[in-house]
Amino acid sequence: MSVTDELLANNARYAEGFSGPLPLPPAKKVAVVACMDARLDVHRILGLQEGDAHVIRNAGGVVTDDAIRSLAISQRLLGTEEIVLVHHTDCGMLTFTDDDFKRSIQEDTGLRPQWAAEAFPDLDEDVRQSLARIRANPFVPRKDSVRGFVFDVATGKLDEVV
Amino acid sequence: MSVTDELLANNARYAEGFSGPLPLPPAKKVAVVACMDARLDVHRILGLQEGDAHVIRNAGGVVTDDAIRSLAISQRLLGTEEIVLVHHTDCGMLTFTDDDFKRSIQEDTGLRPQWAAEAFPDLDEDVRQSLARIRANPFVPRKDSVRGFVFDVATGKLDEVV
Repeated sequence: MSVTDELLANNARYAEGFSGPLPLPPAKKVAVVACMDARLDVHRILGLQEGDAHVIRNAGGVVTDDAIRSLAISQRLLGTEEIVLVHHTDCGMLTFTDDDFKRSIQEDTGLRPQWAAEAFPDLDEDVRQSLARIRANPFVPRKDSVRGFVFDVATGKLDEVV
Repeated sequence: MSVTDELLANNARYAEGFSGPLPLPPAKKVAVVACMDARLDVHRILGLQEGDAHVIRNAGGVVTDDAIRSLAISQRLLGTEEIVLVHHTDCGMLTFTDDDFKRSIQEDTGLRPQWAAEAFPDLDEDVRQSLARIRANPFVPRKDSVRGFVFDVATGKLDEVV
């Protein structure tokens, strides 16, 4: 049995206790941008319930153009007002460089990705970079509450980056 | 108190019961690409525990270049082998068109986004489009188990798109 099949069996159990559809717009009017890291269960970390918040995740929790696309849709079409960024300690993005990663892909496939891998050497600096990208972007209209945090994978705590 | 402050108070409670750091590579060697929709708690839907899987999320659960970037890092640097795509019924991406959304942003800001909004008119078709983008992409090496599902927000069940 593949892991995917195992997850489908888990889903069947989840559906047994499932209660009806919730509204489409996020109840708490918040969008979270977090790293894809396996140790981050964003709902548990922030005490979110189903229906509360948009959750956008990618490698690093970096504010890429795709994160901006998602935030623009979240705020402009679905009414969210606050943004919470979550990076974390021991992040994989601290362990390589864009140049080395893209070179290894080029050696493996013959093609170099046109995209940046978005690796970073400093966690707090990258949170600030992501905050700055949101503040500078014209497509995300609501910027009164845009705050960035580092999740400590050893303690479970969020520390704000200011 | 802002919603963000409320979520930080939730995090303090989470950290009280937190037990130590888990390993960085996902234990179940799986990456999930899902919509950012507020009604999807990916961990609960799939019965995932902390440490199990990478979770990549954006508006629509669409396989964008940024999702490819995250999947490439997930497979090439952190050893994941299976991919699970999760779209869902009643998705916001079914309710608008790229042209109208980008026109409204242009009228509001004077600037038209260079990116596609990735709205779609048909759920199953878009799951197939995302599966096809992964299969066609040279930067994602492991494609033996790439499967796509629609989560039903009324029943909690996943239905596979074939």
